[in-house]
Amino acid sequence: MITLYHHPLCPHSRFVRLLLAEYSIKPELIEENAFERRRDFLILDPAGQTPVLAEESGTVVSGPGPIAEYFDETRGLALGRHRLLPDDPGSRAEVRRLFDWFSQKFFHEVTNWLVTEKVYKRFMPRKQGGGGPDMDLVHAARVNIRTHLRYIGYLAGNRKWLAGDRLSHADLAAAAHLSCVDFLGDVPWEENETAKLWYARLKSRPAFRPLLADRLPGFCPNPIYADLDF
Amino acid sequence: MITLYHHPLCPHSRFVRLLLAEYSIKPELIEENAFERRRDFLILDPAGQTPVLAEESGTVVSGPGPIAEYFDETRGLALGRHRLLPDDPGSRAEVRRLFDWFSQKFFHEVTNWLVTEKVYKRFMPRKQGGGGPDMDLVHAARVNIRTHLRYIGYLAGNRKWLAGDRLSHADLAAAAHLSCVDFLGDVPWEENETAKLWYARLKSRPAFRPLLADRLPGFCPNPIYADLDF
Repeated sequence: MITLYHHPLCPHSRFVRLLLAEYSIKPELIEENAFERRRDFLILDPAGQTPVLAEESGTVVSGPGPIAEYFDETRGLALGRHRLLPDDPGSRAEVRRLFDWFSQKFFHEVTNWLVTEKVYKRFMPRKQGGGGPDMDLVHAARVNIRTHLRYIGYLAGNRKWLAGDRLSHADLAAAAHLSCVDFLGDVPWEENETAKLWYARLKSRPAFRPLLADRLPGFCPNPIYADLDF
Repeated sequence: MITLYHHPLCPHSRFVRLLLAEYSIKPELIEENAFERRRDFLILDPAGQTPVLAEESGTVVSGPGPIAEYFDETRGLALGRHRLLPDDPGSRAEVRRLFDWFSQKFFHEVTNWLVTEKVYKRFMPRKQGGGGPDMDLVHAARVNIRTHLRYIGYLAGNRKWLAGDRLSHADLAAAAHLSCVDFLGDVPWEENETAKLWYARLKSRPAFRPLLADRLPGFCPNPIYADLDF
């Protein structure tokens, strides 16, 4: 059994849940509030950040990028033509460029602000920065997402999937981040039909179902969040 | 000939310069001020961030992580026992965890604040955020680096190199970021002798020499910056 330390609205954790589902792996999920800095979790991962994955063998892999590469190296071949990294180094570099785009650029310009301000801060003690959302940051994220949505639409309009002919880490990362923002109702889908259609394809995959069932105490997801015909 | 779009004080670019030197590759360096958002550079890399590497064949690879993986895939075997990624997936995951630690965590907690506030802002137009440094951010970075230095000392005290028995992407990333901070005189080396000895080993490698010769108009590097017996 694989164990995944995650948080339901941590976009990096969601990426790994999507990834594992594409490998038909059902992990044991342990919910972790990273901001609590739990001692046993810090021993497992000194950075104290979700996601962290533990194999039954004892191997521990931290972070969405290392986890994705680790699965490609240990189980990628078994996926055959559904492998989530292409074969040639140039195409792999393109997948990784877009994976970094969503895991880092989109995260710092959009997801992190929305999830921290609207969700995490509600659960954090005040001395750790908890409290009401900083609406300036929420507004900035809502402005920034529009550029990203246009870029997704551009890519999806010119390629079968975001990084090329095959579904890859890039699509899963983009969809994981967007799914957090969509949970909060902050994706202006009406602005880009091509991006919306690409997301609808992802959302219909069996791998996506557990994410759509996620609920958080005290939060009502956006009404169209779990709707496949949004 | 390989072309590298870089900035002398961009830590991610420095990582790639160290990496290429370990592969005995001397790239053509093109200095890029990412904040200028030059059109031809944005066509090459829509994120508009250094480093970006172009092969003579036309293959373009963006970002420090994708570039490191691309070189391991295309030229890693030729390094033999000096290969910068280990052979087994678990050890590779450890290298990548620490690579992300320095490229992302250290960058956002230390390097980015120091380099942006003390260097980039001096060259940026005021309407793009240029001007004097925000000393609160500079001070925060100076506090944060102490924890990172202790962690480097802990790792270097328990392993031959940061991620294990062999020099890896993790050492090059850590050294690249530290070298930027050291250029600015903000590494409290006296606080951790083990970290300092590890850095001295890196600094003595031939790959490091071009970095130590870097100069920037209007900046005097810290007097011990290029000193191998600092």
